[in-house]
Amino acid sequence: MTQRKMHLVAFLMTGPTCHHHGAWRHPETDIDGILTPERYEHIARVLEAGCFDALFFADILGIYDTYANSYDTMLERGGQLCLLDPSVILPIMARVTERIGLGLTYSTTFYNPYQIARMLGTLDHMSRGRVAWNVVASHSSLEAKNFGLAEMPSRAERYDRADEVLEACGALWDSWEDGALVLDKKNARFVDPSKVHYANYEGRWIKTRGPLTVPRSPQGRPVIMQAGSSDRGRDFGARWGEIIFTLQHQKSDMQAFYSDFKGRMARFGRAPESCVVLPSIDVVLGETESIARERAHYVNELVHTQIGMACVSGQIGVDLSSHDPDMPLQDVATELGSRGSVDVILQGTEAEGLTLGQAARRFATSELCPQLVGTPEMVADRLCDLFQDHACDGFILTPTTFPGMYEEFCRSVVPILQERGVFRKTYAGSTLRDHLQD
Amino acid sequence: MTQRKMHLVAFLMTGPTCHHHGAWRHPETDIDGILTPERYEHIARVLEAGCFDALFFADILGIYDTYANSYDTMLERGGQLCLLDPSVILPIMARVTERIGLGLTYSTTFYNPYQIARMLGTLDHMSRGRVAWNVVASHSSLEAKNFGLAEMPSRAERYDRADEVLEACGALWDSWEDGALVLDKKNARFVDPSKVHYANYEGRWIKTRGPLTVPRSPQGRPVIMQAGSSDRGRDFGARWGEIIFTLQHQKSDMQAFYSDFKGRMARFGRAPESCVVLPSIDVVLGETESIARERAHYVNELVHTQIGMACVSGQIGVDLSSHDPDMPLQDVATELGSRGSVDVILQGTEAEGLTLGQAARRFATSELCPQLVGTPEMVADRLCDLFQDHACDGFILTPTTFPGMYEEFCRSVVPILQERGVFRKTYAGSTLRDHLQD
Repeated sequence: MTQRKMHLVAFLMTGPTCHHHGAWRHPETDIDGILTPERYEHIARVLEAGCFDALFFADILGIYDTYANSYDTMLERGGQLCLLDPSVILPIMARVTERIGLGLTYSTTFYNPYQIARMLGTLDHMSRGRVAWNVVASHSSLEAKNFGLAEMPSRAERYDRADEVLEACGALWDSWEDGALVLDKKNARFVDPSKVHYANYEGRWIKTRGPLTVPRSPQGRPVIMQAGSSDRGRDFGARWGEIIFTLQHQKSDMQAFYSDFKGRMARFGRAPESCVVLPSIDVVLGETESIARERAHYVNELVHTQIGMACVSGQIGVDLSSHDPDMPLQDVATELGSRGSVDVILQGTEAEGLTLGQAARRFATSELCPQLVGTPEMVADRLCDLFQDHACDGFILTPTTFPGMYEEFCRSVVPILQERGVFRKTYAGSTLRDHLQD
Repeated sequence: MTQRKMHLVAFLMTGPTCHHHGAWRHPETDIDGILTPERYEHIARVLEAGCFDALFFADILGIYDTYANSYDTMLERGGQLCLLDPSVILPIMARVTERIGLGLTYSTTFYNPYQIARMLGTLDHMSRGRVAWNVVASHSSLEAKNFGLAEMPSRAERYDRADEVLEACGALWDSWEDGALVLDKKNARFVDPSKVHYANYEGRWIKTRGPLTVPRSPQGRPVIMQAGSSDRGRDFGARWGEIIFTLQHQKSDMQAFYSDFKGRMARFGRAPESCVVLPSIDVVLGETESIARERAHYVNELVHTQIGMACVSGQIGVDLSSHDPDMPLQDVATELGSRGSVDVILQGTEAEGLTLGQAARRFATSELCPQLVGTPEMVADRLCDLFQDHACDGFILTPTTFPGMYEEFCRSVVPILQERGVFRKTYAGSTLRDHLQD
């Protein structure tokens, strides 16, 4: 029996910060190159050298302005900004790599299925079969305003619509059979038209006739990623997902999600191994545990209180800009009443006895993503423990410094995982879907 | 006084054919690589070595099915197909070149301004200021059906809407001032938020709040290309265009368009030199005139009669599939009555005494684009003559063989134009807008 293999995916954003809001201020973080292609080419090469299954870009189609009713803090202090369109970055990364999967986030609410299917089909050709689509139904009114919508549809409607978008895209990707391209110059036969079909998709919201312009791509269709955590979101993921990206702080929460999710997959008639569940993890490494802790302390101290307050405001949907950061967090919790969102912050920060400002800064080191701090061996132990105890099928790494954390992880943790036989030493297949089924 | 300089732009499609429907069948045409990035990297390098101002991709968001009410002929015989999404191809071309402009076609009817502005802004960063947007309002019901629209708006409404899309994109591109990115790690100042603004655009059809996520790009906004030939289309181009792409067969028609267009620019308060007018030209070269003529005959013979009939059907909007290709063209013209579109075909083919099939094949060698056949000196003479007689400010070249024609043109015609002092020997500036103002 072959050993079950861990899957690793790198989380990226085209901005200063992923989950750690001090990361961009670290002396070793490349921030000057933030608008250059070289920055993205470099990280793609690093992650492929580390045999990661894939990298992917989260995305936000606007700039949050919940806190103090303004985007000033998000911009000034360097919050979760997605400055660039990842669909332009991935083709560039595809050309400096050969095996690593390449994912991007694309909204089913704001983009048209014909454009989605055509762009992703083209990217699957250009990368020779390495594309993933992180499907989001989108939820922020901020994004709606940028796209000219008066307001967002309800969650249920957004997911129903997302189902239709996936069905429509599937019909478009299937509109070309394998082998339709003939390329016979002598007999003037470019395509065998009997192998191309109208899609003729008609849903309640979505219609498209097709055929797509794009001949069938190496993967046929992109690998589907998804991160919905609501009941409806989990069902959506269980129906469509091949990579599920989660955010839980405790092992027991990860296990609960994992088992719930695999159960849902069965209800959609899918084998549990046809989708990997990957919680996000931040890592800070050091030669000794003491060095690692000092390094974690150093980078965590780089989180500005204001961006922490803005992050918490965004998370709980309450503008805390008029609250004194020195106020005890318990008083804030009492004031806000029974909001589950406050528990969410408490879980993330283990916040007993903290002030609001302290808790906010701690929250903004990770956005609830567990921070593993230690030697490479300690981190590998922890990852293996979670993996073997069925808390997950692997991990989405998010950077504490960029690109430093990924470089260190690939250099020091990956070889340990490989040595233990839980992670590939080389890519066996050529497409992303191959890697996931390794 | 510095000599007026000619501008050259290369026309590309991500399919078998541009204007010449026999091109893909030529023995030297690279058709096997049609879905590979290497094909596009190669042509980008060739055209940059030839100091072209830019290359650009025309685009069609679907597969024409006018002829015989089917896409079979377009696919089987290799008509104007745009298999791939150019927005994925240009980032790849950007990374193997340093100076040449990179244009793509994007529809104001089917794409949302926030997505357009973000994608093009990102591409302008990744290419360091070399992006052009060929703005099309789109007109085909075929494309509308793929995008789920019941029917296309009227031409007037499409152009009014296109005006709004351009205004909205402009507001988004202007939402970041130069110098807004501070990148000050020490003081936790990523951006100076006083230099970022809401766009707050509200038109009749288009709304967007902004700000864009993308910091101001090297060109600020992409160079605008346009090809409208109707009265409303010309006005649109005169208001927005920096490169106008035209299709006329006769020098006198080019001159009439040129003078009409520059006059319209004045009415929009623009200097005539702020936009270049470039008619399309096909070229077939040979060491002697006789060789060139034989080569032209050879490639023109590669046009299949059926694709010719399909092209004419598409052009005049009448399905000719039930007509006998051996019917005299004059009889077809008589039958169809006073349609100006038939004159269009006559102009393109000089069709006296031809059968429908012959005229159709001749039409499909060029889609009305003049075919210059001769030695490099003869072609250079003709280009200089049109340029100096104010028929144009330069040319859009379209390929008769691919990439062979561009390789030959860059090797043999460009040096003559350079020697005569009408074309650059090296790029003086770094952005596309620099090249246009050379």
